[in-house]
Amino acid sequence: MISASAAPVMEGTPQKTDSRVSTIVEVDLGNRSYPIYIGSGLLDEPDLLQRHVHGKRVLVVTNTTIAPMYLDKVIKALAHENSNISVESVILPDGEAYKDMETLMKVFDKAIESRMDRRCTFVALGGGVIGDMCGFAAAAFLRGVNFIQIPTTLMAQVDSSVGGKTGINHPLGKNLIGAFYQPQSVLIDTDTLNTLPDRELASGIAEVVKYGLIRDADFFEWQEKNMQALLGRDPSALAYAIKRSCENKAEVVALDEKESGLRATLNLGHTFGHAIETGFGYGQWLHGEAVAAGMVMAVDMSRRLGWIDDTIVERALNILQQAKLPTSPPEIMTVEKFKTAMAVDKKVADGLLRLILLKGPLGNCVFTGDYDRKALDDTLHAFCKS
Amino acid sequence: MISASAAPVMEGTPQKTDSRVSTIVEVDLGNRSYPIYIGSGLLDEPDLLQRHVHGKRVLVVTNTTIAPMYLDKVIKALAHENSNISVESVILPDGEAYKDMETLMKVFDKAIESRMDRRCTFVALGGGVIGDMCGFAAAAFLRGVNFIQIPTTLMAQVDSSVGGKTGINHPLGKNLIGAFYQPQSVLIDTDTLNTLPDRELASGIAEVVKYGLIRDADFFEWQEKNMQALLGRDPSALAYAIKRSCENKAEVVALDEKESGLRATLNLGHTFGHAIETGFGYGQWLHGEAVAAGMVMAVDMSRRLGWIDDTIVERALNILQQAKLPTSPPEIMTVEKFKTAMAVDKKVADGLLRLILLKGPLGNCVFTGDYDRKALDDTLHAFCKS
Repeated sequence: MISASAAPVMEGTPQKTDSRVSTIVEVDLGNRSYPIYIGSGLLDEPDLLQRHVHGKRVLVVTNTTIAPMYLDKVIKALAHENSNISVESVILPDGEAYKDMETLMKVFDKAIESRMDRRCTFVALGGGVIGDMCGFAAAAFLRGVNFIQIPTTLMAQVDSSVGGKTGINHPLGKNLIGAFYQPQSVLIDTDTLNTLPDRELASGIAEVVKYGLIRDADFFEWQEKNMQALLGRDPSALAYAIKRSCENKAEVVALDEKESGLRATLNLGHTFGHAIETGFGYGQWLHGEAVAAGMVMAVDMSRRLGWIDDTIVERALNILQQAKLPTSPPEIMTVEKFKTAMAVDKKVADGLLRLILLKGPLGNCVFTGDYDRKALDDTLHAFCKS
Repeated sequence: MISASAAPVMEGTPQKTDSRVSTIVEVDLGNRSYPIYIGSGLLDEPDLLQRHVHGKRVLVVTNTTIAPMYLDKVIKALAHENSNISVESVILPDGEAYKDMETLMKVFDKAIESRMDRRCTFVALGGGVIGDMCGFAAAAFLRGVNFIQIPTTLMAQVDSSVGGKTGINHPLGKNLIGAFYQPQSVLIDTDTLNTLPDRELASGIAEVVKYGLIRDADFFEWQEKNMQALLGRDPSALAYAIKRSCENKAEVVALDEKESGLRATLNLGHTFGHAIETGFGYGQWLHGEAVAAGMVMAVDMSRRLGWIDDTIVERALNILQQAKLPTSPPEIMTVEKFKTAMAVDKKVADGLLRLILLKGPLGNCVFTGDYDRKALDDTLHAFCKS
């Protein structure tokens, strides 16, 4: 079972130096438990990394975008006053298109060439693609070696930090090959978000908003008050948003590790969103952008069913607009395109499409196939021109 | 923890019909426990297979040698009075040379094309290569699906049935990419050994002899008395040899799941044997043939150290000769070739080569680097012409 507990070492404050290691979220998985360190300047704290490296050999897996910015810093942190250690790195091409077996083999090639042994540690330095690939490589290399995540996008920090999903794409589908594999630790330096493009920051915020909508009204209210601080990359606001997101995800996963029901609620807006990504073409919109538009559609449908009142619709719309996220699908999306894509969704069981919909006061949702089909039709027609 | 218990449903008897499901070995791994069914004619018992298939879709992974002999039989057993089920199969090229990523991808391709879902079951029908590849494919497909093993070689039956090791080779080394992954069940039909070439049968017997030498004097004595029955493929003799081998392996793995010390004793003769496989070229000798010669060398060295008496040397030599296994390395092997290959053995720690050697009465061994180097040299010179 996974459970999350926040151990605030020092709560984030406006003083920059004090915000270091502002929070540790403990993901409790029995003998596979691990800490998530969250704060500003954590890459300048060598001990945080070194304490989770058990052997003498480290392989940093990163990409061509992140390497020029942070690879030296990470290597320095690993080697700082630590002459025992040897650090190698492999720099992969950047992008979802390279989350494939061919690129994964480059990680194995490098690991074998540099004689990594069973006690080595793989470090994932980058966004979700790097985390997924490095994690799967660590799971499979010599049947499993240690693994540390340093996520550098908000999306990876609030989503991939918890859950242990790793893997690669197959030409015929996303994430079809992989493993459930837990890291030794996750190190989130909020300073890495300073180099993140605005659109990518907003994409991550879409997932943060999701946690508020599905299960945490207090957090949603905090976001309404602090959206400008988040967009302005205020370290303590970011640290708090990341902490609450990781805690919420850890709690949900704890209650339903095998994704049978409750865990599906983490996919609010994702069924509509995936339809947009499929119909529009992957790479046109960022994942969080498609999810944002998808959440607005799910919220609209919930209102049509009479399950939530209008204020929730307005507040959801408003907060996503503040974050400059899209709140409707791209014009290219037709009702037909939505229906085609949604028919092959993983959540279809016996021909019935189950959806995550809001129901009740803010912070409550359901995962159900028991809804009036007309509401879905009406939502699709309201958001599509044809 | 793994522990083995034999639950003899019906002890094997000369009557053919009675020998079905002669034995079940339970591998006890907590919630990952599974049974190994051993007996003659088990592929004609559809229930044994069907009871471990939970979903509606099955993918049988086999090779070009085994498919013509047993694929139809397995498909029939799976589908017998079971119209719910759909069975697909993928036939891989036969041989260690194809235990690679490219061939593994063919399994994923077929699984995706035939729309296998999370509740599907992969069935490995073949020898060690098929078991390793199908097991790793099952571990990684959709992050883990059910998996049943039907090993058709004696080597796979007495070695791969216990331990959960799956994986593929990398161009730079064997078994470098994989997972620890347990099957739902293992079905060993001793009748499949009727089509196994004599050399392959003997190769498996080398591993059977190993269990006797390292930890089971009673089993060794049984083998001395029953070697002709084994070579004559007597079903109940085979079933007993397979049962005791699986039990011995399960007990060792239980005591040392992570291969830190005791589990290494399962590699008696393998350090010398791997040197032969490397120096002679993989594929020249079968694995068990190289292990047989390697065991004779390890036994010889144990005697030179004064750790065992001459009768054990003679009995080991005699039983392997009965099985028509090689008892010395091929002429191409020089002292130098042995030393080169043994220097890069995985069991070298801090420059010290640790070996599995017999010590004490029959059925006792040690895994140690604490031995007189001269004994190793003398053994190498005694077995090599130069």
